[in-house]
Amino acid sequence: MKLTKKIMLSENDMPKMWYNIMADMPNKPLPVLHPATKQPVTIDDLSPIFAKGLCEQEVSQERWIEIPDEVYNLYRIYRPTPLVRASGLEKALDTPAKIYFKNESVSPVGSHKLNSALPQAYFNKIEGTKHITTETGAGQWGSAMSIACKHFGLDLRVFMVKVSFEQKPFRRSIMNTYGATVFASPSSETEIGRKMQQQFPGTAGSLGMAISEAVEEAIKDPDTKYTLGSVLNHVMIHQSIIGLEAEKQMDIAGDYPDVVIACFGGGSNFGGIAMPFMRHNFVDGAKTRYIAAEPASCPKLSRGKFQYDFGDTEGYTPLIPMYTVGHEFEPASIHAGGLRYHGAGQIVSQLLKDGMIEVQDIPQLETFDAATLFARCEGIIPAPESSHAIAAAIREALKAKEEGKEKTILFNLSGHGLIDMVAYRQYMDGQLTNYEVPQAEIDKNLAKIAELQPK
Amino acid sequence: MKLTKKIMLSENDMPKMWYNIMADMPNKPLPVLHPATKQPVTIDDLSPIFAKGLCEQEVSQERWIEIPDEVYNLYRIYRPTPLVRASGLEKALDTPAKIYFKNESVSPVGSHKLNSALPQAYFNKIEGTKHITTETGAGQWGSAMSIACKHFGLDLRVFMVKVSFEQKPFRRSIMNTYGATVFASPSSETEIGRKMQQQFPGTAGSLGMAISEAVEEAIKDPDTKYTLGSVLNHVMIHQSIIGLEAEKQMDIAGDYPDVVIACFGGGSNFGGIAMPFMRHNFVDGAKTRYIAAEPASCPKLSRGKFQYDFGDTEGYTPLIPMYTVGHEFEPASIHAGGLRYHGAGQIVSQLLKDGMIEVQDIPQLETFDAATLFARCEGIIPAPESSHAIAAAIREALKAKEEGKEKTILFNLSGHGLIDMVAYRQYMDGQLTNYEVPQAEIDKNLAKIAELQPK
Repeated sequence: MKLTKKIMLSENDMPKMWYNIMADMPNKPLPVLHPATKQPVTIDDLSPIFAKGLCEQEVSQERWIEIPDEVYNLYRIYRPTPLVRASGLEKALDTPAKIYFKNESVSPVGSHKLNSALPQAYFNKIEGTKHITTETGAGQWGSAMSIACKHFGLDLRVFMVKVSFEQKPFRRSIMNTYGATVFASPSSETEIGRKMQQQFPGTAGSLGMAISEAVEEAIKDPDTKYTLGSVLNHVMIHQSIIGLEAEKQMDIAGDYPDVVIACFGGGSNFGGIAMPFMRHNFVDGAKTRYIAAEPASCPKLSRGKFQYDFGDTEGYTPLIPMYTVGHEFEPASIHAGGLRYHGAGQIVSQLLKDGMIEVQDIPQLETFDAATLFARCEGIIPAPESSHAIAAAIREALKAKEEGKEKTILFNLSGHGLIDMVAYRQYMDGQLTNYEVPQAEIDKNLAKIAELQPK
Repeated sequence: MKLTKKIMLSENDMPKMWYNIMADMPNKPLPVLHPATKQPVTIDDLSPIFAKGLCEQEVSQERWIEIPDEVYNLYRIYRPTPLVRASGLEKALDTPAKIYFKNESVSPVGSHKLNSALPQAYFNKIEGTKHITTETGAGQWGSAMSIACKHFGLDLRVFMVKVSFEQKPFRRSIMNTYGATVFASPSSETEIGRKMQQQFPGTAGSLGMAISEAVEEAIKDPDTKYTLGSVLNHVMIHQSIIGLEAEKQMDIAGDYPDVVIACFGGGSNFGGIAMPFMRHNFVDGAKTRYIAAEPASCPKLSRGKFQYDFGDTEGYTPLIPMYTVGHEFEPASIHAGGLRYHGAGQIVSQLLKDGMIEVQDIPQLETFDAATLFARCEGIIPAPESSHAIAAAIREALKAKEEGKEKTILFNLSGHGLIDMVAYRQYMDGQLTNYEVPQAEIDKNLAKIAELQPK
């Protein structure tokens, strides 16, 4: 009896270093700029907002970065995560493709977010930070930060995008159970929140707005630091543990991916699984393809522009060279709250520009079709975000069938959807729709950032 | 750096046999009786309702029962599950006790129930069953049967206790996503359901009623069989994989439990973790204690009576020799829906009678206090059912502290509570209460079953 369903990695083989693709990129990304001076930001510019250890990682050119013991030990609560051969899905699709997925849903909070929450809490703890603020979209990042802060004895205030706060009340309860304080964003807690409430009454909120609120609190108090769940380089570095483990597990399975797929919000889960493989494209001549699956309703990669833009709505952050639909873009209220973000991180943007990344934009209904098929074949109900990766993997597997080609597909199951059953119910009851973004909407928002570009 | 947080078992060491304590009990349990004749039931009596392979296990005296390959392969999707040293909880309690828990929450449906759902679907499949019916309380069993039936291509109708159907709408959505049909019980689908609706208008339902409905459908159609998620011997046999794995993992940790604890509904998760250890009490002179943690609002073990009683409300099932508060007992609407059951299985009842099991009855608020502490210390939000085991473990750990005694405690974390955030919200908002059952209520229900006893 051949048993290749789940490929585990022994704990002793869990990677001891994170990987930083900055070291291996042929074209380094453009620098992040200070919005006032348009000069590259320094660690000193960033350190009032972020823990210094994280600022150093943000600009690091080191290929390998050691995982601190305290973080490594906490990783061991749920890592290494399984690599799974999706044999049920393969059978249902009747495809010659082999489909593997990395199952990050087994973490106690149900997603990959803990991989970065733990080191972010850790570096803040050892530097004496007292209070942490953060934003959360779907609530996955907020949940992860909540328990990470509890592990290290830090208190946490979470600004949760209003539409998710309402659609996903249980995420809030999870954060509260872990001891965090949660506000619907835009809130009345901050200046920018109050301003947004006035300016856009009844707004659904966005990750950009929530970031502005959380950053404002960090700027105003030296004992408070801000943490971000995606977009930034140090987050992607932490997430590289996903791909590093997957690489070892693919090796155990005697296989190597022709295509690596992940959903795309700010880029950290995508980068986390893709970069350790992409390294071999740069260094060893591997020909693996990389597909970022983004929601059709927030098409920064497929229809946005490579520009300097703010990471938040209000313009508190430095200017990041990114694919963006403009920092004032207000994404539709799709259920994949974690993907409702206007821009892509600095590194992934450069790699997309250099042709290393392909993009698939996926309408909401297709993601739920894919999710339901996956649930019935593989037993796991996926998060709406991860369902974008599943949908893209299904597209690839069906293409392989059409072309009669064997192909090895690897995708990241970034989280489970057990907290998202409201969305599944609406889908089953025929209440969900697709959202098409008018080009004029994108153009309008991009026009606004033209003046931000350095001369 | 000493790493003893999570003890994994290699897949090759996963047990290949289930354990059946019937073979090692000094006093065998009294026989299950046919209600009309008061004679012991035979496999022929049971097989119109249950798959024959399961009926054979139900009465088996064999010590070891082979796990079929098809089931073993599906177990490998999520098993072996981790054994975890609850070092965070130990520290918070400042106890000399060592606390371990077996983490069954990592299964795709979030609980131990899949351990029995898979073999139950399997034996039905190979015997040609077309349709399956079942009941579910909290929805954990129904979710597990839904995906198990999908794996084996069987259709499933689930009768879900009405209070859980309303308190836990997402469980229903999960079952629907897996392809099952779900009814609030008492429903209008069955004779008994309609009768119950008339007799007890506005009833919250109970596991007993839901069982009656599901059994009725199996009795009426030869292509339909019924499956039960607890109480019966074959279910406990399937769950023995929990304890068998834990035994190997405790051995890896260089430890052995002085106390084994689990929550108690019908007895299968309790028996599943306890029996493989209890064997050593019988065979090798081990002195381990076993604690069943039941809700104070449904105190069959602590305040019920050892009597013959029906397994369901209507009296469709055989008479089981059990600790019971009477099959017409209607438990309060606590959030631990999986523990709202009037009786205990045949084997665990005999073992309780023989003094092998201790009982702790736990008020609802204490279970949520324990759950919240556990969540903050260990990062996992537990199911309300499992929180009874955590509360009992905390009592034992605090007793050890009081007495200044070292002690090794092992409990079963039967499931996570990510679908139960409504309950946590109510708890945090001060809306939950304890329920005290008046003795007169228990006496009244016990009086009704006096006439069922054999002469």
